[in-house]
Amino acid sequence: MPLQRTDTWINKYFPISIWLKNYTKEDLNGDIFAGIITAILLVPQGIAYAMLAGLPAQVGLYASILPPLLYAFLGTSKTLSVGPVSIAAIMIASALSAPEITVLGSSVENAIILAAEGGLILLLMALLRMGGLVNFISHPVLTGFTSGAALLIILSQVPHLLGLSKNQCGFDLGCYSQYFQQINSYTAGLALLSITLLLSFGSPLSILLNQLKVKKNIITGISKCAPLLAVVLTTFLVRFYQLSDNQHVTIVGEIQPGLPEISFSFINNLEQWKALLPSASFIAIIAYVESVAIAKVTANLRNQKINPNQELIALGAANLATAFSGGMSVAGGFSRTMVNFSAGARTQMAMIIAVILLSFAVIFFTEQFTYIPKAALAAIILIAILPLVKLREIITTWKYDKSDGLAELITLLGVLALGIEEGIALGVIITILSFLRRTSRPHIAIVGKIQDTHHFRNIKRHQVETWKNLTLIRIDENISFANVSYIIDFIENETIHKSHLEHVILIFSSVSHIDTTAFEALENLINSLKKQNILLHLAEIKGPVFDKLKQTNFINHLSPGKVFFKTIDAIDDLAN
Amino acid sequence: MPLQRTDTWINKYFPISIWLKNYTKEDLNGDIFAGIITAILLVPQGIAYAMLAGLPAQVGLYASILPPLLYAFLGTSKTLSVGPVSIAAIMIASALSAPEITVLGSSVENAIILAAEGGLILLLMALLRMGGLVNFISHPVLTGFTSGAALLIILSQVPHLLGLSKNQCGFDLGCYSQYFQQINSYTAGLALLSITLLLSFGSPLSILLNQLKVKKNIITGISKCAPLLAVVLTTFLVRFYQLSDNQHVTIVGEIQPGLPEISFSFINNLEQWKALLPSASFIAIIAYVESVAIAKVTANLRNQKINPNQELIALGAANLATAFSGGMSVAGGFSRTMVNFSAGARTQMAMIIAVILLSFAVIFFTEQFTYIPKAALAAIILIAILPLVKLREIITTWKYDKSDGLAELITLLGVLALGIEEGIALGVIITILSFLRRTSRPHIAIVGKIQDTHHFRNIKRHQVETWKNLTLIRIDENISFANVSYIIDFIENETIHKSHLEHVILIFSSVSHIDTTAFEALENLINSLKKQNILLHLAEIKGPVFDKLKQTNFINHLSPGKVFFKTIDAIDDLAN
Repeated sequence: MPLQRTDTWINKYFPISIWLKNYTKEDLNGDIFAGIITAILLVPQGIAYAMLAGLPAQVGLYASILPPLLYAFLGTSKTLSVGPVSIAAIMIASALSAPEITVLGSSVENAIILAAEGGLILLLMALLRMGGLVNFISHPVLTGFTSGAALLIILSQVPHLLGLSKNQCGFDLGCYSQYFQQINSYTAGLALLSITLLLSFGSPLSILLNQLKVKKNIITGISKCAPLLAVVLTTFLVRFYQLSDNQHVTIVGEIQPGLPEISFSFINNLEQWKALLPSASFIAIIAYVESVAIAKVTANLRNQKINPNQELIALGAANLATAFSGGMSVAGGFSRTMVNFSAGARTQMAMIIAVILLSFAVIFFTEQFTYIPKAALAAIILIAILPLVKLREIITTWKYDKSDGLAELITLLGVLALGIEEGIALGVIITILSFLRRTSRPHIAIVGKIQDTHHFRNIKRHQVETWKNLTLIRIDENISFANVSYIIDFIENETIHKSHLEHVILIFSSVSHIDTTAFEALENLINSLKKQNILLHLAEIKGPVFDKLKQTNFINHLSPGKVFFKTIDAIDDLAN
Repeated sequence: MPLQRTDTWINKYFPISIWLKNYTKEDLNGDIFAGIITAILLVPQGIAYAMLAGLPAQVGLYASILPPLLYAFLGTSKTLSVGPVSIAAIMIASALSAPEITVLGSSVENAIILAAEGGLILLLMALLRMGGLVNFISHPVLTGFTSGAALLIILSQVPHLLGLSKNQCGFDLGCYSQYFQQINSYTAGLALLSITLLLSFGSPLSILLNQLKVKKNIITGISKCAPLLAVVLTTFLVRFYQLSDNQHVTIVGEIQPGLPEISFSFINNLEQWKALLPSASFIAIIAYVESVAIAKVTANLRNQKINPNQELIALGAANLATAFSGGMSVAGGFSRTMVNFSAGARTQMAMIIAVILLSFAVIFFTEQFTYIPKAALAAIILIAILPLVKLREIITTWKYDKSDGLAELITLLGVLALGIEEGIALGVIITILSFLRRTSRPHIAIVGKIQDTHHFRNIKRHQVETWKNLTLIRIDENISFANVSYIIDFIENETIHKSHLEHVILIFSSVSHIDTTAFEALENLINSLKKQNILLHLAEIKGPVFDKLKQTNFINHLSPGKVFFKTIDAIDDLAN
């Protein structure tokens, strides 16, 4: 049996061992095509997202090599494309630009520590089985956050698109008219060309090719080449007309050729690790949440399953790998995964192929990347990010649930006004508070007996038998610090000024937990009812709750109040 | 009718108008005696808690004049004794000693702003009816916090008790042997004398006097005079032997005589207000929580009611009053309220009488306070605070509920290691997280039909009829971001690899709310089940939930899945 056990262990932690066993030629065909298409996207995205994070281009390219390879071995999604992503990039930019961080070391060093710390945090979460914690980032908060971050990204790209220096105007509106006079029309022209290409390669071209009866596979392939085409065309124009020298068009500049070297030199700076910890946690959690969300979307389309805890391991390992190879934080990218998926990727083999192709590019062609105009990259970012701005969803959410809509709006505004991490923290706090507020008002029913049965129902909704000397109160939720004062108030209002009342029977059929705060409040309730000559009794206590109460002095405290197995027993004993 | 309305309004916001109407001579007798006893306690406590907060003595005395008067008019507790309290005092000390605060102004000025801000925060909470928010400070967190703060207070009094300078040793253990060599034996002797007096005036003296058949009332009165006696005796010794000049025994020093003047000069320093806001919020909330807790204890003993929202108003006004009259933050004090109560206070008239007596003392006798040795005051603080250290409760709580016990322990350790505000924040976060964790695993039951009835019950607990082509799943809680992934996982595990399964019917009889996150997850579930050729249906939806779903596209999305009024209808329609 030991062999089999090892087998299970490997299958569990290395999902690749499962799909590789049944790998077919058909799978390979799909994966090769998708791999090529995705590789074409990896180059401009790697450079662009490094730029977005305020880092040298190779940091983005290096993040596209080892991390997707590790994910291919460890990840449970067949089509997730792991690498640099826009949301993480803007979070990195924001973390690195904080004054207390810039003094601690170079941006590249800090970015690498962010990735390493993020990786360790995800692995720790896997170890502690804390993946469930991310459920507390509710959907409205995630949408509000994504929209806000996307808007920030778009704003950050405006200078690149128009060839402007960094915007320093702030809220001085007069300053803007001067600022926008400095537009570099060559840069703006290149940006416009790129945007036009990217947009027309979407549905317009597909429809045209479809009418020309081109194979669907080929159409998909061609339509995904727009970013490459935009980069190649604009780079050609820059070189041919020497736009970078003559017209000050900003270009990517020289990129260090060759594969990344493995280095551990970033490990020993404790002060940097400490200072970057909060940002690293935020980036890691968001990277994880977004990756799993995207992975689930594509998995659902093919009826496959994602294992959230294994994803923590895979993404944690990918982020450690990016750190050791000099790259930036990674996650599953939305647009890249969709491209990979719709180009026909069957397994992570597609990403392995893409990585091999990218490695060739990084070894042999970095010189060609030097003249890529930043305007083209900004255009790629812009088009990739636009669908993430979902302002109308706020209205839809608001219509469905006011407090969710509010949380979404406040998260969005928080991201824009206070900062990315502050915005999402604010959203999570609001969601949890409104959740607690809602659960602090549990459902409680006064019940009576349905004639000739042993059933008890809400007196408000059914015709039932009641008694003057006792009240039956059914509590429909677990009792905890969050709702116990509401429950006690309810009971006290039901018992005050009722001179005939002798017994209050709490029906605990729906109570499977009573926390310490609630426990003590119930003890106080027993006392204050006794002062009014009313006895408290319990009925239909669940086994675990009763066991817990028996451990304490509660039952003595209750006495002469009793514990009844069934509500009907209480009626037989006490009613008159 | 307008007269009557005004009447109700006055009764609501000025509870004094109710009890004063029925005030009897008997009440007055009780109140006079209790007022005298409480006044005797107010003087040393006022000076001691000012010392604890690191403020001049008069700041504590001033806080004992206007605030209890205002509370007497506005408060709903008949016996709560409002004034300076130990826990708030140590929180003030910690807030005022922060380096970024000390540069902003004098300690007294900062303390007054803390009180004013706290008062405004409580009034704002009253206005927004946010009193319920304090329920989120669960009982274990409050106990852990109180124990931790009490330990910090005791530690802070050690130098006063032993006549040492401020302890600067930190974790350097070698330093302590040197430090403790500097003990001033005269100071330590006075402290020991005070502690002996305070302890022997508790039960030992009461038992003795009881055996001598002294009236119970008188015994209570005498036993409460210990603090006064300790102060008088030690002060006499200091003056007689000139211990402050000859033996360096630290004394209170000169206190400004006379009543406080009303001043508004602290209002216009925005920077100070901003910097003190976080601490002011913590102090105000803790002051409120502890006051209401104490008020409830004494109210329960006499079958009276506390109105939490009116308490926000009363304590808010009391804290504003203390600020305007140059005092420190106030709350209901535990030991002082118990003294007032057990000395026979019937109404807040006792506190009015105590304030009048204290005012006389402040006008005519401040000179006598000059030579009070700080050691005696430290002893009073020590004895008052000791019962608040409840380390054994952590074990009791742990035995009853592991996560509550952990929250209590971590709060205590957090207060000691990280600081008072940090500790309580940590405790609240842990409580909420473990609450969310618990609610993230709702009760879900697969149900079947009890033969010959229309009742459906858990298949695990009852013998019921089931069908091969459908599964009935009853969800016993509201569906929200916190538990939806658990629910979806449960349903998916029930549906996977069941080739006969055609229908899943969710019974929503206990679901009264579905939030946005859950709503979208359910939509995705419908899709993924459809891919497995399984239809999702709903049964027993409550009115409000159905109305909400109808607003959206959900019902179309569900189709051809249906919504059934009763579960039995679904069986009639779908089972085969």
